[in-house]
Amino acid sequence: MFSAEGWFFTTSQDEVMSQVSLPDDLAVHGADGGTIIMLVMDGLGGLPHPDTGRTELESAATPHLDALAARSSLGMLNPVGHGITPGSGPGHLALFGYDPIESMIGRGVLSALGVGFELQPGDVAARLNLATVDHDGVLTDRRAGRPSDEEGQRVIEAVRDHLRTPEGVEVTFIHEKEHRAVLVLRGEGLGDGIADTDPQRAGLRPIQAAATGTDAASERTATIVQGVLDQVREILADAPQANTFLARGFAGFTPYPTFETRYGLRAVAVAKYPMYRGVASLVGMTVDGVPDSNESTVEMLEQHFGTYGFYFVHFKDTDSRAHDGDFQGKVAAIEEVDSLLPRITGLGADVLIVTGDHSTPALYGEHTWHHVPTLLASSWARASAKVFGESSCRGGDLGVVPGKDLMSLALAHAARLDKYGA
Amino acid sequence: MFSAEGWFFTTSQDEVMSQVSLPDDLAVHGADGGTIIMLVMDGLGGLPHPDTGRTELESAATPHLDALAARSSLGMLNPVGHGITPGSGPGHLALFGYDPIESMIGRGVLSALGVGFELQPGDVAARLNLATVDHDGVLTDRRAGRPSDEEGQRVIEAVRDHLRTPEGVEVTFIHEKEHRAVLVLRGEGLGDGIADTDPQRAGLRPIQAAATGTDAASERTATIVQGVLDQVREILADAPQANTFLARGFAGFTPYPTFETRYGLRAVAVAKYPMYRGVASLVGMTVDGVPDSNESTVEMLEQHFGTYGFYFVHFKDTDSRAHDGDFQGKVAAIEEVDSLLPRITGLGADVLIVTGDHSTPALYGEHTWHHVPTLLASSWARASAKVFGESSCRGGDLGVVPGKDLMSLALAHAARLDKYGA
Repeated sequence: MFSAEGWFFTTSQDEVMSQVSLPDDLAVHGADGGTIIMLVMDGLGGLPHPDTGRTELESAATPHLDALAARSSLGMLNPVGHGITPGSGPGHLALFGYDPIESMIGRGVLSALGVGFELQPGDVAARLNLATVDHDGVLTDRRAGRPSDEEGQRVIEAVRDHLRTPEGVEVTFIHEKEHRAVLVLRGEGLGDGIADTDPQRAGLRPIQAAATGTDAASERTATIVQGVLDQVREILADAPQANTFLARGFAGFTPYPTFETRYGLRAVAVAKYPMYRGVASLVGMTVDGVPDSNESTVEMLEQHFGTYGFYFVHFKDTDSRAHDGDFQGKVAAIEEVDSLLPRITGLGADVLIVTGDHSTPALYGEHTWHHVPTLLASSWARASAKVFGESSCRGGDLGVVPGKDLMSLALAHAARLDKYGA
Repeated sequence: MFSAEGWFFTTSQDEVMSQVSLPDDLAVHGADGGTIIMLVMDGLGGLPHPDTGRTELESAATPHLDALAARSSLGMLNPVGHGITPGSGPGHLALFGYDPIESMIGRGVLSALGVGFELQPGDVAARLNLATVDHDGVLTDRRAGRPSDEEGQRVIEAVRDHLRTPEGVEVTFIHEKEHRAVLVLRGEGLGDGIADTDPQRAGLRPIQAAATGTDAASERTATIVQGVLDQVREILADAPQANTFLARGFAGFTPYPTFETRYGLRAVAVAKYPMYRGVASLVGMTVDGVPDSNESTVEMLEQHFGTYGFYFVHFKDTDSRAHDGDFQGKVAAIEEVDSLLPRITGLGADVLIVTGDHSTPALYGEHTWHHVPTLLASSWARASAKVFGESSCRGGDLGVVPGKDLMSLALAHAARLDKYGA
């Protein structure tokens, strides 16, 4: 359930384990099961174009996906719940078989993991924006004129060099990209119930860090955070731009039970963008290498193939083009993945799933709650159509599948689950 | 939730009641509702034959089932959960409206109920194999050369005649069939957290009975069990075959709330095989007579009809032929049930359901997780097709139905459920 505190990750490992969809005593096979590839096109689900009545996926020429659909069980994925629009974190946690509501993860933790920072239990992380304030301390640009990666990195280093560390707390700043950075606090008795200091628009002053509730740990941590942010403001006082930091998504880190623990699966993630590598590493997937294109994503998958039991492969452009409202761009992004598909099917995994972490219809321009067309190719599939699209998946054998149950289907088709009961 | 002890049935009656899908305060009608027949073809769901693209059910000539489908609501049953392959116990518990995960039942209890033994709360039961060990105590045959029913019965009687009963515990051996038997312990303070003594393959020694956890009751019971098994070995020492017993599936018995308590339904089971009569009696169904053929199954249903509100009718051959990998055999088994169907529809029940407890595709040769084609014939059905098969059920009005919700649909169509709320 959502806690009253809202967004923050307060679930203990035991609680997470108890929320697994699989019965606790259902044996999961280890080394002897089949291999699984989960190919995620971010924001895959769409809405029909008013001129044609066809969604982005149905408009795209996808001969390889269609051929795959003809030997797949089809269905519609309901990532988090009816009417719930998933962020990327919950969307992917669901795909990986973790209850996305019970196992909620804070933005700060996602960002820290995304930049490869090795969080320890009890760490508190927040996402930072480099921002610009005027002489009166009023925000003029929440993104500090979108500095280059080099400029952003320089600002972070200046702060690192001059910060006086508060007593008993390690403070780490990590630059992510452009105006984006991450703050991690490490020490005894920290709390993560801290409200965002980002007022979300220019013309306002940054908000003073404050605890959202009354727990002493979060109150103490909020004071530490404000002290650090005050120092940052002093250190950067003379800069015309990028002279302050805004913090949001404070989140404490509790390790998740890993893929290997839960499924006996050694897993690897191949994803161009840090956030997706972050979620993957959160559940214990190996992240070995960073592809810089869709082509190199497939190359990296090919290099890894044979070494792991589970392969998570992430393509981002479908979501990005849809966020731009670019219907044809999303169509083209789908077609590009389709053109790469023969190399993926050629690997001969026992189970190949193609899905998305949520829908991002180009006509809507943002994530939505709509079901996501999904195919599961396997020798044990019950095929029902010769095309991959919202319409064919709607009539598929899997029906509407809760996101967190997709992994159970993957494991079953890979002969990795025992029979349940006599 | 399942305890760490695993497999054993530790759910109290209150817990079971709280897991009912129906709202607690939803009134269920008694005598004035309609009659329901639930016809189960074991392992009904299949996979398409590669040559034809049609499953076993779709390949069978089933004029009567097809005619029935034309006046039925169709759907796909998801017996236990996505990707979960049900054993016969969980599969049938779900069909009867009991949450198959929360109400898990141990193999020993199922076997004891199957042979008609009247378990009392606190009894601990285990499934036994008559087996053969060599002079060094190493297992040479886990099934003792598959003795005849008479030979098996003789071994059990020899053990009964010579066993010195341990202090404070009643020990009952019941022969089931061939090499199969059941052990029941009755006494104060017994525990069921006992690991199997069956090492599952020849060439190994039987495992000493041992508690799986640290509870004193199970530790004490394990000692009693091992004492009994040691005596069995002595009693049978001179036999060349069937000279030891292997025990598995230790399970304590807690009564389930009955069909009559939960649904106000007097129910009867007609099933050729003991296990299915066992699950039925577990939920309080009457078991009156044992049919010895499919034909006599229908005769017995005809004899009972009019006396009960609910009739569970079980046909096994569909599952058996699929376990043999015999696609055409399963097709023929379906056709045989179809040929008997007019006598069943002729009874004029208000609701007639045809379904399975799980899928057993002949191509897979074992139970699988696939949804099970299901029809519900009633005056209030929303028909959508004129054939009964996986494809037609996929597009049916019921959608994908969790197994444990099928009973609610049965009760509703029999006008046995009140409106919920004002």
